[in-house]
Parts: sequence; C-alpha cells; structure tokens
Amino acid sequence: MYAVFILGTAGSGKSTLASRLVEWYVSKNAYAVTLNLDPGVIDLPYEPDVDVREYVSIDEIMSKYRLGPNGALILASDLIADRLDEIQRKVDELNPDYVIVDTPGQMELFAYRASGMFFAREFRCDAKASIFLFDPMLVNSPLNMLSIALLATSIRLRLGLAQVNVLSKIDLIKKDKLAELIECSADPARLEYALQREKDSELYLLGVSILKGLRRQGISMGLLAVSSLTYEGMVNLAGALARMLREGEDVENGDEMNYA
Amino acid sequence: MYAVFILGTAGSGKSTLASRLVEWYVSKNAYAVTLNLDPGVIDLPYEPDVDVREYVSIDEIMSKYRLGPNGALILASDLIADRLDEIQRKVDELNPDYVIVDTPGQMELFAYRASGMFFAREFRCDAKASIFLFDPMLVNSPLNMLSIALLATSIRLRLGLAQVNVLSKIDLIKKDKLAELIECSADPARLEYALQREKDSELYLLGVSILKGLRRQGISMGLLAVSSLTYEGMVNLAGALARMLREGEDVENGDEMNYA
Repeated sequence: MYAVFILGTAGSGKSTLASRLVEWYVSKNAYAVTLNLDPGVIDLPYEPDVDVREYVSIDEIMSKYRLGPNGALILASDLIADRLDEIQRKVDELNPDYVIVDTPGQMELFAYRASGMFFAREFRCDAKASIFLFDPMLVNSPLNMLSIALLATSIRLRLGLAQVNVLSKIDLIKKDKLAELIECSADPARLEYALQREKDSELYLLGVSILKGLRRQGISMGLLAVSSLTYEGMVNLAGALARMLREGEDVENGDEMNYA
Repeated sequence: MYAVFILGTAGSGKSTLASRLVEWYVSKNAYAVTLNLDPGVIDLPYEPDVDVREYVSIDEIMSKYRLGPNGALILASDLIADRLDEIQRKVDELNPDYVIVDTPGQMELFAYRASGMFFAREFRCDAKASIFLFDPMLVNSPLNMLSIALLATSIRLRLGLAQVNVLSKIDLIKKDKLAELIECSADPARLEYALQREKDSELYLLGVSILKGLRRQGISMGLLAVSSLTYEGMVNLAGALARMLREGEDVENGDEMNYA
C-alpha cells in the first residue's frame, strides 16, 4: 500500500485533486481509496472511503467544550492523532494499492500541529509521498512564488515526506503566464531576473539572497503543472509519484537490511 | 503612529503578547491600542480598542452562506480587506503612538490569503514592523526549528513587513534547553551540528543544504527570547521594534524624496 498526502494552502485545490487522482489510478486498474482528514469540511467533491468525521465531530466539540469555530477546528485536528489506530485499521481492512490522504483545508491545522506530523510519520504503509499544491492565485509575483516555495520546503522538513511541488488549477491561467511561472520555478536565475521588478529594495535583496543560497545548493522547486479539470499534467504527476514511492520503498527496505 | 503586527502559528501566544506589549508601552507613557483582526476568536486576554468582530460576524456568515466553521473563517478573513477603510478610520480617530495588530489565530487566514497581504501593505501609518512568534512546542528539534524559520521567511516575503523573530513562552522551557535554542538560532554552524542527530539522511541533507545557503548569504534567524508571563526579554523586544520602526520611517521618507 502506498500513501499520497495532498498538502497546500486553503483553496489550492487539495480535495479536487484527491478525487481526480483516485479516478486516475482506478482508470489504470489500481485499487485507490480516499482518506479525508479534515474534520471541519462540509462538502467534498468525492465520497471518502475513510473519513475522520466519523471519529471527530466539530459540532460536538463546539458544544461540549464551549469553543468557537476556530478553537473547535484546532482541537478536532489535534484529535486526529488519537484516532490514528482506528483510521489505520479501517484503511488496512480496505487493503488498497493507493490511499490518497486529503489533509485539512487550512494546512496549518495539519502541518504545524503536533498531530499532523505524528500522523504523517506514524501512518504505516509501504511508502509515502506528498503533493504540495502551489495555488496560482498566491504565486502571482516572483516574491510570492519564492514565499510559497519556502512554505513548501518548511512543510517538507516538518512532515518528512518526499514531496512533489505542483502548480494547480492551471486551467485558470493564461498560456504565456503559465509558461513563465513554470520556467521561473525550474530556473532560479530566471526567477532572480523576474524579482528585479520588485519595488521594495529590501525585499528584493532578501529574495535574491535566499535564491542564491538555494541555487548554490542545487535546490529547485521545479513545479509540475496540473489541472484537475482538464487532467492536463496528470501523467507527469503520476510518474513523479511513482518514482518517489518506489524510491521510498527501496530506502525503507535498505534500512531494514542494514540494521538487521 | 507605528503599527506592530503580531504573527505566528496557532497557539504561539500572539494575543497574550499583544496585550503585554500594550501594557509595556503604556507603562512607558506611550499611547498604545490593540486592533484585533481575528473574526473567529471567542476569548481574548485583552479588551480590543478596535475589533474586526464589530464588522464581520462568523455566526452570521455561517448561517447566511450556509458554511461550516472552516469555510466561514476563510470568508470572514477575506472580508477583512473590505473593511480596511472603516478600521483605518477608527484607528486614526484614536490617534495612538502604537497600534498593536493581533492577527487571526490561524496564521494562514492572514498570511496566505490575498486580504491579509492587502491589509498589511495598505494600512496607513508612519512605519510598520512585525513580530513572528516561534512556538517552543513546534521548534523541539533542529529540523523543526529550520522548518519554522523557513515559514517565518516565507511570511516575511509575502507580507513585506520588517520582522523580528521571537521565541515565545520561554517560561515553559528549561534553562539549558532555552540556551541551546537561542544559540542554534543565532549560529547556523551550531544548528548544522545539531542537525546531525537527525536520523532521516535525506532530510538531514536537505536541511544542511538550506542552512549552508542561508549562511553563505549571512541570513540568520537570531531569535529573541520573550516571556509574556514574566516579561523576560521585553526590553530587548521593544528595542528591536524601535530600531525597525525608526528605520522603516527613514526608508519611507527617503523613498519619497527619491521619487519626488
């Protein structure tokens, strides 16, 4: 069983991509299921096979602990870790080839709470990977692209999951703008050039410094362009996931042999 | 009028620090007021002088738009930008020396939505600065410290505010642990050494690469240790803010002269 965690800021298209990815794998004759980890979501574009809302109820938490929506969402997300065993058992019973894990709408509730890190690290399967979604609405300037790239790297370090960076909802972007975004993401020199348009000199200098640092170390965000609407880029995404998952499996087996 | 935005992950101690900072300035005979920008908060440790909840009601949004708590929080946060003029007028009427801006509990609702960036950039005052809080509960390993440092830098680039990084709630940390955290934050070589304890070799290598990059560019997170409970570190924090605010004022005046 492979697990694919879908991460990204609120509104970046996590749930839609989760449903499309399952459809994709099913169309390739793999058995893929969805796991919804967002206790506060009302409508989902798919019917989750395993659903944290069966174990944690926001309404109950709001009334039981007399919390507002904000506090209830935080507490509910923290409770996810307590339900790991039950969720794991339910997924294991289904015994799928792939489990697509849809994380809470607000990424902070998963990525920057202890429970999310615990879940990502402790969930048992043969290999794990994650998709981090760059929302085109948020990467509308070179500085903002660099900002979201740092966020993606921050979450990569925190959750410890292999990660593919995806520019989502590309059906909403004009062709030339899309080409520029993808080129900038793959080529720090190009992004640095684009940064020069930034008026705030201090921010420009900080941005260039960070870019230079990343570049010297050969770190590139290299975005994959994907549309959940038109399926454009889905082949590339599935290929990137397959490579990461196979590699993850090798590494884990290798570790076991080394320490045996 | 100076504005100080308080930023950080949920539970990092933003609201408590906001109330303490106002008390601090008042004790120095400055006129400081609080501006609460969290539409979803129930209890605050202070009585806000200006309050976004007067303009945006989560309950109304939940019933009017038939949204769950998650969607209502997002929509409410997006509406903050629409209320900028009214909020600005109300703050201007008070005409304080300092306005301490307490941002939404979940930083994502402010930092990674268009409205927060708009508010931070368009709010009018003589100079702005921000405090980003590192929650000691989240920086419990070298990798996690690097992760939160990247998050802080991501938000710095996005909001474009001068930023001081603060390790909050230090009354909860043992003295030797605190000393180690502060040293690691100021010295990338020390943090790199601490990273070697990380078992995941791939994450270790990524972490070291990022650190090397930042180090070569002279970028250090240099945390200030502050306790809102004991007031420890408050003098240093006020000093750091004063330097940034004065510099911000100079730069803005300088810009005006250059383009005049």
